[in-house]
Amino acid sequence: MPVESRADEKLRWGIVGTGGISQQITADFSLVGNADVVAVASRHASSADEFADAFGIPTRFDDYSKMLDSDIDAVYIGTPHVTHFELARAALERGRHVLCEKPIGLNAAEVRELAAIASESGAFLMEAMWMKFNPLYARLHQVVDAGAIGEIRSVRSSFGAPFPQDDSSRWKPGGSALLDQGIYPVTLSHMFLGEPSNITATGVIREDAVDLSQNYTLNYSGGRFAHGASSMVEFLDQSASLSGTGGWITIDTGFWFASRLTVHRFSVEKGETTETIETTREGNGYVPMLRAVTASILNGDVEHPLHTMDETARVFDTLDEIRRQITPNGKAWS
Amino acid sequence: MPVESRADEKLRWGIVGTGGISQQITADFSLVGNADVVAVASRHASSADEFADAFGIPTRFDDYSKMLDSDIDAVYIGTPHVTHFELARAALERGRHVLCEKPIGLNAAEVRELAAIASESGAFLMEAMWMKFNPLYARLHQVVDAGAIGEIRSVRSSFGAPFPQDDSSRWKPGGSALLDQGIYPVTLSHMFLGEPSNITATGVIREDAVDLSQNYTLNYSGGRFAHGASSMVEFLDQSASLSGTGGWITIDTGFWFASRLTVHRFSVEKGETTETIETTREGNGYVPMLRAVTASILNGDVEHPLHTMDETARVFDTLDEIRRQITPNGKAWS
Repeated sequence: MPVESRADEKLRWGIVGTGGISQQITADFSLVGNADVVAVASRHASSADEFADAFGIPTRFDDYSKMLDSDIDAVYIGTPHVTHFELARAALERGRHVLCEKPIGLNAAEVRELAAIASESGAFLMEAMWMKFNPLYARLHQVVDAGAIGEIRSVRSSFGAPFPQDDSSRWKPGGSALLDQGIYPVTLSHMFLGEPSNITATGVIREDAVDLSQNYTLNYSGGRFAHGASSMVEFLDQSASLSGTGGWITIDTGFWFASRLTVHRFSVEKGETTETIETTREGNGYVPMLRAVTASILNGDVEHPLHTMDETARVFDTLDEIRRQITPNGKAWS
Repeated sequence: MPVESRADEKLRWGIVGTGGISQQITADFSLVGNADVVAVASRHASSADEFADAFGIPTRFDDYSKMLDSDIDAVYIGTPHVTHFELARAALERGRHVLCEKPIGLNAAEVRELAAIASESGAFLMEAMWMKFNPLYARLHQVVDAGAIGEIRSVRSSFGAPFPQDDSSRWKPGGSALLDQGIYPVTLSHMFLGEPSNITATGVIREDAVDLSQNYTLNYSGGRFAHGASSMVEFLDQSASLSGTGGWITIDTGFWFASRLTVHRFSVEKGETTETIETTREGNGYVPMLRAVTASILNGDVEHPLHTMDETARVFDTLDEIRRQITPNGKAWS
């Protein structure tokens, strides 16, 4: 049931889950313009009430299904990883458009199944890969496309931080440094080099399959490569860089939400020249993604070209292979 | 024949080879104080003459052996890689102290053989790993030893640049991105993490065994790792970083000769704090190494504690394994 263009309307969003990321996203929805957060759902009525009161949301539910059956157009899913697949499926099967926090599934099979369900339903589906919508990345693509560093030959990026040992889902089955932090380096690598021909990975994974840290090399033809690393138990330099035949570009620390990059360009005439490009962060940084997704849905699109489900699934192919290699019994956890 | 302390004298140096690196080193010798460059040797009399005239060196030779037999204390060897072993051996066997441009040999076996020859002769021997003598690295060690970033868990560094396709030894057998550029990332990794327990490497190597590019992961116990990359055919982000349990340190571009690093430190109380440390480069950057080596020799030492032959050989063990893995027939080139 394709949606007709409703570009002059406001899209009615429901928020699934009331954790920190849902709060950041909901705050940013207020800056989008043609989006209204009209409902929120939590398994706990008190959490839903508190969240709804804090953000002035008219309707609250203590049951996700009830919200999915209510008068909403789309949902943002901000619950723990392990619940994403079932909640996204439930929403899609009711014809609700879905923006699902990353990781959209636990493995490539889940991602492809969700994509098929979305196709069947005609609803919009996207993983909330906000990095791709960061205005700095639009500038990055412009600079790269203009040939500033020639052909891209390598990408390096990492995201690690020792998260507090608390009661959060991070430390329970389904929690994963690879899926929570590593998805950024892997997505960045795919953005600029595509699918690797060969992967090598090492890492630390607990017996309950919660992976704590990993580093990985994605190899491509002709000596091109991407190196990434992720960890929830130690810091890892949070910058990134792309290197090419004509120079390299460094993205500031917190590369996935950064607002500054530096182009190091080399020429025989001028030697090294550097150029710094800065962009402005709107709200908590999710506004450009929320605006783009809202516009896509109102336009009747079923996915957004910046982060298609096909591309998302290919990223998960890489994540799956990394997990397989760092799992002692050699079997992918799923 | 151990040398007695001559700390109040001037050491008489001879320069072997008249290429670009010999010129930079010779210029820096003039800033050392207790070192005199008294001779230079080249296979070509005209090159030796030109070099000697340019730097005001009294004696010039068109034969390396003749210079080794002349009235000098020590030699700096700045000729192509493939000649280092034989020239260093010839000097050591005559009791001349040796500072040899990196790579001091082509493989670990050569390095260990030179170390044995040096022990036998009682002469000083060191690879010219100037990075370790860069005053920024003294500050780096201070910061790390003071626990600024906790336990070091990973190191990343790379050095790549598309060198002109000229007639230089870089493009001939014995030339090597691994030995010329890669020796810096590998040495840096060994400095802070030691010998790896496992190595994975990929790269591009020509049929004549000249390796053009490579990237490598050195793995250590408990998920610690170092990633490095080197190339003579493309740029690679020339910065480096060390990451730990408490933050990370980024060394500016040209990490091996850089004069600035930034410490990213995290604490519950203060969140992220950054500190920038800058040092001053003296001459072309070789002065601190030349001064330290000159002082060591005048002091009667046979090696310098910052870059012992044992540590050098361990770096070459890693370089050998990387080369073995990127060589199609699986055999180390030597």
